[in-house]
Amino acid sequence: MAELTHLDERGQARMVDVAEKPETHRVAVARGRVSLRPETLQLVREGRAAKGDVLAVARVAGIMAAKRTAELIPLCHPLPLTKVEVDVRTNEQDTCLEIEARVETVSRTGVEMEALTAVAVAALTVYDMLKAVDRGMTIDRIQLIEKAGGRSGTWRREDDEARHAR
Amino acid sequence: MAELTHLDERGQARMVDVAEKPETHRVAVARGRVSLRPETLQLVREGRAAKGDVLAVARVAGIMAAKRTAELIPLCHPLPLTKVEVDVRTNEQDTCLEIEARVETVSRTGVEMEALTAVAVAALTVYDMLKAVDRGMTIDRIQLIEKAGGRSGTWRREDDEARHAR
Amino acid sequence: MAELTHLDERGQARMVDVAEKPETHRVAVARGRVSLRPETLQLVREGRAAKGDVLAVARVAGIMAAKRTAELIPLCHPLPLTKVEVDVRTNEQDTCLEIEARVETVSRTGVEMEALTAVAVAALTVYDMLKAVDRGMTIDRIQLIEKAGGRSGTWRREDDEARHAR
Amino acid sequence: MAELTHLDERGQARMVDVAEKPETHRVAVARGRVSLRPETLQLVREGRAAKGDVLAVARVAGIMAAKRTAELIPLCHPLPLTKVEVDVRTNEQDTCLEIEARVETVSRTGVEMEALTAVAVAALTVYDMLKAVDRGMTIDRIQLIEKAGGRSGTWRREDDEARHAR
Amino acid sequence: MAELTHLDERGQARMVDVAEKPETHRVAVARGRVSLRPETLQLVREGRAAKGDVLAVARVAGIMAAKRTAELIPLCHPLPLTKVEVDVRTNEQDTCLEIEARVETVSRTGVEMEALTAVAVAALTVYDMLKAVDRGMTIDRIQLIEKAGGRSGTWRREDDEARHAR
Amino acid sequence: MAELTHLDERGQARMVDVAEKPETHRVAVARGRVSLRPETLQLVREGRAAKGDVLAVARVAGIMAAKRTAELIPLCHPLPLTKVEVDVRTNEQDTCLEIEARVETVSRTGVEMEALTAVAVAALTVYDMLKAVDRGMTIDRIQLIEKAGGRSGTWRREDDEARHAR
Repeated sequence: MAELTHLDERGQARMVDVAEKPETHRVAVARGRVSLRPETLQLVREGRAAKGDVLAVARVAGIMAAKRTAELIPLCHPLPLTKVEVDVRTNEQDTCLEIEARVETVSRTGVEMEALTAVAVAALTVYDMLKAVDRGMTIDRIQLIEKAGGRSGTWRREDDEARHAR
Repeated sequence: MAELTHLDERGQARMVDVAEKPETHRVAVARGRVSLRPETLQLVREGRAAKGDVLAVARVAGIMAAKRTAELIPLCHPLPLTKVEVDVRTNEQDTCLEIEARVETVSRTGVEMEALTAVAVAALTVYDMLKAVDRGMTIDRIQLIEKAGGRSGTWRREDDEARHAR
Repeated sequence: MAELTHLDERGQARMVDVAEKPETHRVAVARGRVSLRPETLQLVREGRAAKGDVLAVARVAGIMAAKRTAELIPLCHPLPLTKVEVDVRTNEQDTCLEIEARVETVSRTGVEMEALTAVAVAALTVYDMLKAVDRGMTIDRIQLIEKAGGRSGTWRREDDEARHAR
Repeated sequence: MAELTHLDERGQARMVDVAEKPETHRVAVARGRVSLRPETLQLVREGRAAKGDVLAVARVAGIMAAKRTAELIPLCHPLPLTKVEVDVRTNEQDTCLEIEARVETVSRTGVEMEALTAVAVAALTVYDMLKAVDRGMTIDRIQLIEKAGGRSGTWRREDDEARHAR
Repeated sequence: MAELTHLDERGQARMVDVAEKPETHRVAVARGRVSLRPETLQLVREGRAAKGDVLAVARVAGIMAAKRTAELIPLCHPLPLTKVEVDVRTNEQDTCLEIEARVETVSRTGVEMEALTAVAVAALTVYDMLKAVDRGMTIDRIQLIEKAGGRSGTWRREDDEARHAR
Repeated sequence: MAELTHLDERGQARMVDVAEKPETHRVAVARGRVSLRPETLQLVREGRAAKGDVLAVARVAGIMAAKRTAELIPLCHPLPLTKVEVDVRTNEQDTCLEIEARVETVSRTGVEMEALTAVAVAALTVYDMLKAVDRGMTIDRIQLIEKAGGRSGTWRREDDEARHAR
């Protein structure tokens, strides 16, 4: 039966106990996108240097945010991340920037929140760098795509959901 | 002519100069939502205590994140916020949780990023607290709804966009 | 013979070496209280929503502070906490709010400071939320109640001290 | 009539609006103490170097914590502090260490929480540095002693309370 | 007569009082360098993408560090920075990377520490990204080059010193 | 063949994967210096209290910074440090303050960056505390001196380099 593990029997928030869970290699992949106007996307694509830096700054911001997830999300466990990768690329067909984060650890609990936080902060960083020319951008479809490791094993977003996710 | 103010003439990232801008009262309102399964939404709504805490924790996380925006978003200016409100409510018609943040300051630059960051982190916190029962949730439609104050004056998301936003 | 392990032979501060200590399951419980006026306590107790949030915000603040202990206390080791619980409840007999934090880890050193920090920050948060109506509140009796795990084994506050602690 | 300003009409937490309050010079003084065993106090007093560092580290920790108050206390406003002083001294008569913090700002709201946070973290730091020889120490009587500046003017802890405070 | 303003009459550390100083526009420029092996420098210069990111990541790290100076340097005042620029460039003649940071504020005290911290953290970031191929790199000549604004007016590093600085 | 491990095949920054590396005891020692005027050095040396606090504050700042390395350096892994020592001493012959940091961990990757960061922040703290009397100070020769543990084994700075380092 489903239960909200972050709430104790009185409904109060707590950081759940993971001491008894074994340390295993865990992976999480999350994605999201920033929808923008065609001319804004073109601005990002034009000029090597500018594009390089917009995407590079967003990647760095996402990586750094992954490491601070436990400071931001009240009930997250602090974890020693072993790998973080954030990819930001332009998608002309859907007129958006696509962000994907992959986070790994060897730890007692998973890194879904770290991957999602990396995506969210990379997206916010893109918004910040482009907002002077396009205030109407939308951050969309931030989703967990895959997780592996731990007792619950591997989980992959199902097809109909993944179709939207990409 | 449009320009990316966060990049200098060589395309390098920088925190733009706001010293010459006057200190004025500035407001920003942002929104976003977390789409989840009907049974997850019901779980949130059921039981006073549980619901109380899920929404309360998300609100607190959003408020605290607003104050740390400049640490997370590389080129954001640190600002002395004068007010932060985060509202999280259930929307049964669209089977989602809706989040709205309102941030104010008396400062040389606006607080759009603070409002958007509050929404994003409140949404991530909801995800964290409910992920044990619903890994497929999606964080969606994080958007600036309104900004006021400063040289560029008041901006409101236009109707067709706002329709999606709500 | 007693020695101050945080000071080297010249009396200089250092973070002591714990590399040779084994990783074991460790627990610490700490308590404290906020003494306030009867009418302030009643204000907290009245109205479900209001009470819910004052205590909920204090709990969240305490949990989050436990995770940042090593940033605040100069010579504390950073530890991967496996569980944090903070309880805040009203005590009418003594006209105070009582706070108890329980922190656990699987690590090379104990979590006393994390439990004490959670209590202190939860108490400060209570003060902050009520100070508009009662500036004279006192934060009192912040104490370690119990620790378990590690080379020194289990320690419990003795009776005469515990009597004051409760 | 008294009201809890940190809660809106629905009892939800918020960071209250201070935009309309004028920027004025504000001061807050807070105190607290760490009660310990006579032999622990003597250990602190003995040896210049050792004492120097225990008290010096606690002072530095308190000053640094004052600057991070808005990160720790969920509904506190971030403020540009203009002065922080933390004093830690031995009190043989009461067998304790006494801590006093004085914080100042030129801002729209007061610095009571900064002064109290400085005291609390300095006290926790003392506990951390001495806990190897005295786990039973108690952090006590953390109180606001005085505040000045702002609309509500000067407030001083009254005599009977102050007697306990010292 | 010279005095150490960060120490009070008893030699204790404190954050000095700046409340009486007027808010003025202040600028600080600092520089530093990372000396490395010719083949490491060539590796940085070769290949657009690689070079782009090493220098881009260092720039971002420097900008973000400037904003956290008051958290790192115990007695620094927190300041609302109005501009931060960090430049990192290759110097083949001296076989090093040169870093320059320019920080501005409108505030009661100067931003020398922010500029120096930006340089130091950008240099450490370069070291981190290149250490796999060159552990012997040296971070050198971190210096204040110029400051302007405030009571003490403009200060520029003198020629013989500046010769070394470049 | 040398490669920049922090950049993937497209030259994009990433936090490299260390999950497959074994947890071993790792040590890093770094050094640096602050060159100052003879009269500034004398000011530090004179008067027990003043000297005590300048050096004590710098030590504490260095220790605390070591713990925050992964927040400052974008691609650094967060590590559970088991020991941090920072030593700051006067060197009259070269008219400078010498700083040495030793950091240890039991982890999957090394602590070179933590040791270098501790040295850099201790040096910046010295600068901050003395800048009122000597703005021309230079932070110099921040270098890794030794590392041990991990696959690459022990590395020591070679003699001709070490000669400069001291």
